[in-house]
Amino acid sequence: MSLVKLEDKGKWSLIVMRGPKLNALSREMRDELLSALRSAKPVTVLTGESAYCVGADVTSLSDIRKELEESFHPLLREIRSDRIVISVADKIVAGACLGMFLASDVRIASPGTRFVTGFQGIGLAPDTGVALFLRGYKGMKMAVLGGEFTAEEGEKMDLLEVSQDPMKEAERLAEEISRGPLMAYLAGKKMINVSLGLENFLRVELEEQSKLAYTEDFREGVSAFKEKRRLQFKGK
Amino acid sequence: MSLVKLEDKGKWSLIVMRGPKLNALSREMRDELLSALRSAKPVTVLTGESAYCVGADVTSLSDIRKELEESFHPLLREIRSDRIVISVADKIVAGACLGMFLASDVRIASPGTRFVTGFQGIGLAPDTGVALFLRGYKGMKMAVLGGEFTAEEGEKMDLLEVSQDPMKEAERLAEEISRGPLMAYLAGKKMINVSLGLENFLRVELEEQSKLAYTEDFREGVSAFKEKRRLQFKGK
Amino acid sequence: MSLVKLEDKGKWSLIVMRGPKLNALSREMRDELLSALRSAKPVTVLTGESAYCVGADVTSLSDIRKELEESFHPLLREIRSDRIVISVADKIVAGACLGMFLASDVRIASPGTRFVTGFQGIGLAPDTGVALFLRGYKGMKMAVLGGEFTAEEGEKMDLLEVSQDPMKEAERLAEEISRGPLMAYLAGKKMINVSLGLENFLRVELEEQSKLAYTEDFREGVSAFKEKRRLQFKGK
Repeated sequence: MSLVKLEDKGKWSLIVMRGPKLNALSREMRDELLSALRSAKPVTVLTGESAYCVGADVTSLSDIRKELEESFHPLLREIRSDRIVISVADKIVAGACLGMFLASDVRIASPGTRFVTGFQGIGLAPDTGVALFLRGYKGMKMAVLGGEFTAEEGEKMDLLEVSQDPMKEAERLAEEISRGPLMAYLAGKKMINVSLGLENFLRVELEEQSKLAYTEDFREGVSAFKEKRRLQFKGK
Repeated sequence: MSLVKLEDKGKWSLIVMRGPKLNALSREMRDELLSALRSAKPVTVLTGESAYCVGADVTSLSDIRKELEESFHPLLREIRSDRIVISVADKIVAGACLGMFLASDVRIASPGTRFVTGFQGIGLAPDTGVALFLRGYKGMKMAVLGGEFTAEEGEKMDLLEVSQDPMKEAERLAEEISRGPLMAYLAGKKMINVSLGLENFLRVELEEQSKLAYTEDFREGVSAFKEKRRLQFKGK
Repeated sequence: MSLVKLEDKGKWSLIVMRGPKLNALSREMRDELLSALRSAKPVTVLTGESAYCVGADVTSLSDIRKELEESFHPLLREIRSDRIVISVADKIVAGACLGMFLASDVRIASPGTRFVTGFQGIGLAPDTGVALFLRGYKGMKMAVLGGEFTAEEGEKMDLLEVSQDPMKEAERLAEEISRGPLMAYLAGKKMINVSLGLENFLRVELEEQSKLAYTEDFREGVSAFKEKRRLQFKGK
C-alpha cells in the first residue's frame, strides 16, 4: 500500500492517509483505506499526513451509487463496526471525510482545523453519514445548506475535542482503551448505532444521493471544479 | 387572501401572516397559510406582521383530530417537504407556531422574542412537531411540562439564531440559497426527516393529541380561556 | 418495605431509597423500588438517603438477562410510563441508577454530585437506557468507553439542572406539576418515548448486555470487584 500506511503499535494500529491532494479519496485511496481498516487491530488511530482528508476526489467521481455502495458506505460501516476508532484531524476535514471523522468514537482535532461539508459545492447532499451525525439547529442547517466550522466551534457544538497535541492524546487513549473490556465497548457502540438508526439512514442516503447524480447542478458542479471556474447552479 | 400575504421576490417568496390576535391560527388563517406555502417558490421566507404567530386560535378549536389532519400536519409537512423555509420570528412564537418555527431550515429571531409551548395551558400536549424538535434535557422537560424561553436562551440551546436585523439577514440568505443547488438541499432535508423519524412521530402525535380532546382538563382549559378566568385542572 | 420508603405527600409521592452500600440495587432493593413506584401517585419525587444510588449490586449479579428483564427494564419502563418522575440526586449516581436518573422528567442534582457510567469497570456495556439518554459527542464517547461527569458538567451537557437546595426545588415542582393537566404531560412523554425509539432500544440493549455475561472480561470484572483487587481485561 502506498497511499495509506498501516502500522502495528503493539496493542493497537495506526493508519495514516498520505495521498496526493490533501488525501482526496480517489478509488485507489478508498480501497487502500478500507483494506487497512479491515487489517487493523480493533483499536485504531486514524489520521492523515498533510491533513486528515478532504472527501471524495471530485475528478474521479463517476457512478455515485456504485461508489457509495462499494467504498464510502463500507468505510463508514467499518468505522461504526467491531472496532474503536480514534480520529486525529489536522488542517482540513471535508466531505465524506467529515462523515468518517464524526463517526469515530474519539474525535480529536488540533486548534484551527477546518471542518467543511463540501458536498453542496458540487451539487450533492451530504453522504457517508454526515447528515446523521450533525445534530441540533446549527448541525441540521449545515447538513442541508452546507457550511463549515473550526475545531473550536466544533468543540462548542459537542462534535469533537480540541487538543494542543492531538497525536499524543490519541496514543495515550489508544493504550488505555486497548487495555479495556473491548466487547463491552463494542456492545455500547452497537446500541448507539441502533438508536441513531444508522442502517435505515444509510439506505435513504444512498437513494437520495444517487438521484442527485442525474441533476444538471451536479454535472455543472463537477465540470466547474475540473475547469477551475466559477459555477452557476440552476436549482435542478 | 387577506390574512396571509404572499409576495414574489424574484427568485424566492415572502409569506407574511397578518391576522388578528397576534396571528392566532384560525381555520381560515391556516387554510390561507397552507395555500400560500403551496404557491410559494421553493425558497420561502415566513414571518408575521405584529408577531410570528401564537398557535391555534383556541376559541375556534373543535375537532382536534380533524384539525391536525387537515391543517396543522399538512402545514408542518409543507415546511419539511420540497422547500427551504427561512422563518423570521419577532415578539412571540407559541403553540403550533413554535412547531412551524422549529421545523424551519433557518430560524432567525429578533432579540427578546419569547418562545412559549402554550399547549399545556389548555390541557393539551405539544403538537405540530414541537416534541420532536425540542431535544436535550431542557427541551424534553419543556415538551412534557410546558415552559418558555427567550430568543437568547434558544440560541444557547442550539434551537435558533438571534439577529439584530432578522429580516435583512433572511433576505440575504434567501438570495444566496436561491442561487444554490436546490435539489441537493432538499435531499439533505429528506435525510434529516428520516433520521428524525418525522412521519412515525406525527402518527403518534395525532393519536395522543386526539385522545386529549376528551379529557376534562381540555374542556376546562378551553372554557377558562374563553371566559378569561383562572383554570383548575383535575389531572384527568 | 425496609429498603425503600414510600411517603404520601398529599397530591404526590416521595420515594426514598435507603439501602446499604449507597443504595446499591440488590434484587430485594429493586423489587421494593419497583413496588414503590407502582404504588406511588402519578407525580413522584425519587431520591436516596445517603446518595441517589450506585447501580446494580455487583456482588449479587448472576443472570444478567433475567435481571434486566425482571427488574432493570421494568424499573426504567415504570419511570418512562404513566407518571412524572422528579429525580433528586446527591453525592453519587452510577450504573443503572444513571439510567434511572437520565430517564426522569425532571433531574435535579446538588452541586458536586458525581455521575459515573460504571458498567465498563466490570466488563459490561451501559444498560437501563444509559446509552439512549447520553447524546452528543461527549455522551456517546462516554456510553462506549465509560467515564464520569460532575453535576456542573452535566448541566453544561444539558443532561440535568443543579440546585443549591434540590429537595426544596423538587417539592415546589411536585406541587406545581400535580396541579397541572396530567394527561397532557403523559401524552407529551409518550411522544418523546416514540421519538427516542425507547422500546426498540431496550430490545437491543437486552441482547447486547446479555451476551457480555459470557465474556471473560465480565467474569474477571466481577471477581476482581468481589476480591477487591485490580483487574486485568483481556478484550474478550
